[in-house]
Amino acid sequence: MVQTMINILSIIEKKANKLPLTEEDITFAVHGYAKGSIPDYQMSSLLMAIRLQGMNREETGLLTKAMVSSGDVVDLSSIKGMKVDKHSTGGVGDKTSLIIGPIVSALGLKLAKMSGRGLGHTGGTIDKLESIPGFNTSLTSSEFLNQVQTIGMAIVGQTGQLVPADKKIYALRDVTGTVQSIPLIAASIMSKKIASGAQSILLDVKFGHGAFMKTVDEATVLAKTMVDIGWQLGRNTQAMLTDMNQPLGQTIGNRLEVMEAIETLQGKGPSDLTTLCVEASAMMLVQAETMPTLEAAKQAIDTILHNGKAYEQFVKFVTAQGGDLAQFLKPLTKPSRHIVSIKANSSGYLTSLNALALGTLALNLGAGRMTKEDTIDMNAGIVLLKKLGDKITKGESLMTLYTNMDVTEAIKTTALEACLISSTLPPIHPLIEKIIRS
Amino acid sequence: MVQTMINILSIIEKKANKLPLTEEDITFAVHGYAKGSIPDYQMSSLLMAIRLQGMNREETGLLTKAMVSSGDVVDLSSIKGMKVDKHSTGGVGDKTSLIIGPIVSALGLKLAKMSGRGLGHTGGTIDKLESIPGFNTSLTSSEFLNQVQTIGMAIVGQTGQLVPADKKIYALRDVTGTVQSIPLIAASIMSKKIASGAQSILLDVKFGHGAFMKTVDEATVLAKTMVDIGWQLGRNTQAMLTDMNQPLGQTIGNRLEVMEAIETLQGKGPSDLTTLCVEASAMMLVQAETMPTLEAAKQAIDTILHNGKAYEQFVKFVTAQGGDLAQFLKPLTKPSRHIVSIKANSSGYLTSLNALALGTLALNLGAGRMTKEDTIDMNAGIVLLKKLGDKITKGESLMTLYTNMDVTEAIKTTALEACLISSTLPPIHPLIEKIIRS
Repeated sequence: MVQTMINILSIIEKKANKLPLTEEDITFAVHGYAKGSIPDYQMSSLLMAIRLQGMNREETGLLTKAMVSSGDVVDLSSIKGMKVDKHSTGGVGDKTSLIIGPIVSALGLKLAKMSGRGLGHTGGTIDKLESIPGFNTSLTSSEFLNQVQTIGMAIVGQTGQLVPADKKIYALRDVTGTVQSIPLIAASIMSKKIASGAQSILLDVKFGHGAFMKTVDEATVLAKTMVDIGWQLGRNTQAMLTDMNQPLGQTIGNRLEVMEAIETLQGKGPSDLTTLCVEASAMMLVQAETMPTLEAAKQAIDTILHNGKAYEQFVKFVTAQGGDLAQFLKPLTKPSRHIVSIKANSSGYLTSLNALALGTLALNLGAGRMTKEDTIDMNAGIVLLKKLGDKITKGESLMTLYTNMDVTEAIKTTALEACLISSTLPPIHPLIEKIIRS
Repeated sequence: MVQTMINILSIIEKKANKLPLTEEDITFAVHGYAKGSIPDYQMSSLLMAIRLQGMNREETGLLTKAMVSSGDVVDLSSIKGMKVDKHSTGGVGDKTSLIIGPIVSALGLKLAKMSGRGLGHTGGTIDKLESIPGFNTSLTSSEFLNQVQTIGMAIVGQTGQLVPADKKIYALRDVTGTVQSIPLIAASIMSKKIASGAQSILLDVKFGHGAFMKTVDEATVLAKTMVDIGWQLGRNTQAMLTDMNQPLGQTIGNRLEVMEAIETLQGKGPSDLTTLCVEASAMMLVQAETMPTLEAAKQAIDTILHNGKAYEQFVKFVTAQGGDLAQFLKPLTKPSRHIVSIKANSSGYLTSLNALALGTLALNLGAGRMTKEDTIDMNAGIVLLKKLGDKITKGESLMTLYTNMDVTEAIKTTALEACLISSTLPPIHPLIEKIIRS
């Protein structure tokens, strides 16, 4: 009377007892849930057991593998050259994909990128691109592959057939208190990267107020876990840990961020955003063995940011996907109804610029969506005029808000409270905390 | 934008972080689940978090309280005298309620008992009583109260309105790997005892092969938790820890167990079963302050076991609920098709008599049900001819099996393997390990 059939209860029991699951166990659970033979209430119990008892590195790799094999895998083999991908864990004002993509593809890499929409206080690359009139984020598979081959890059929305297990598991985690789990977060992100087909992957793991990981330590664990998954599944994977205690660059909001990306591609971007994009692009070029050293890569990048080649590549990419840049760059026929300047009420140094508070503020100005059904005001957002460490004089503008919503006193107070002004210069932390290669 | 409304996600998050839940949290979760406003997948996630992070004594009391208040509470106030209840955590061959009930009610206590059906390897009191032709386990509320008042005892099945939260939570725990949790087990048992309305409760917590709790330590924790819940909710509660490494008494199977209960009530029962029933009954009598000391109580019990009063009380009780004892005691018109003797294949002392294996064997002979839909063969079962420590001669009968199923070689092997015969006398452990009063 020995029970040899795998059943979900024995898998839950094993994990509740902190025992490692086998490949058979994990595949049974993930595929069973994806195809509906395991009900929500059993999967949520297993997910809570995983959240609380953890998964070792092998289990985490197997979980990712099972998620990938629950759906289609993009075949990039028809594309010549090094197929690369980058992923940011999400932050406020993070428009780096719009800058890094043109840079690395102008220098010979092939970026075939699937990207997401924004939800809550973090924006999504797809939403940003859709602020360009005519931009089409739903290419057919052959259009997508063809564009990557000829132009060097394409960015599209995620398709339904890619990692269906992740879609279903993520939706369940969201309503069962099982989001906060490093193995589950890592497998969710990496399964989509692996299924997207790139050979070489750079992860930008954010930490700080505006990121999902609040501390460097948490972000380090997540980054190491994801890099390890990548190598386990045969992908050259690296991660950089970057600071998200203040927003990246000077803009938050879809159209504003695309404008800033364009300026950065023209060599006129803010220093933090430029630094991050140059460093990340250089890492990707060296990782893909297209450049011998980071120094050489950075020199090449600096050249194309100043000779127009980087921006030219962006124009090619946007045009190929139907975007009308000329229209986008014209002054708005309907600018935001309210353009409000937030002024400092004391003098000193800017010692805190709360990214989470500002991301949430931009959301409330209409720049994002609280639920999947919300529509976005593409022009709404925030332009930050001061960043951490800047000297402030009382009465000076700290930021400008763009919105069609009414700007209440509560909104102004929130904006002001996101900025902390002190009499002493704060210690300035490096934007890039560390690099994790394996 | 502070979220002040209680929501199930914040409750799950709190418990996942090992923080204690408040009365408001627990009531919200339990009542919300009972009435269907919290879905299965959120409740199972919370139950797994409780299984893995535990609950302190206050939370466990509040959980029980919330479960009780999810439904009706039996009002025994119209009954004069001390209303008592006993509960066994379930074992193999446990027919003690059929013996203790008549003893304590013959000596003046009022036993208004709700009991369950058997599932898996442990039997249920209701099933045993239904082996008596005509016995009715579904009395109306007034019939039930009236019988307790006049006869001194009644045993009925659980009603739907009593602790509906337990019914729903237990069904979910069963399919989500969240059965193994002391606070959840304790709250489940105690909520039913509290809702049944008795003032004074004796718990018989079993440990060993044939019990849910395998070790004395586990059983001690469960017993202490339940006793503590009882006192928190205003009930005089005690527990005894008793050995279930071998079946209790000599019979397993519904009709066989009722026959053995009758013999015990006539002072002719096996010593282990008699001892346990006498000790438990004495504890209940002293606990209810009907007897001054355990010694006095045991003397009174011994008297009624030998002067016919205890059995007379059993007859009154069975007759009041429509049972036809005369019919029951007649030789069977259709005895079991197979009556098989299992013979020792070596000589020595019986050093192990696996209660779990024998309970499962009785189930396979037709004496129990694997699923709620199965029907029971009331006459099927096992009569044990030897117990732990008995001297065995090769070829001697160890037990007799009664069944209408085919007795395969596998069944005979299972029966034989449940008995371990060694050359040395094993240490004999006390049947009653300890008493827990608070």
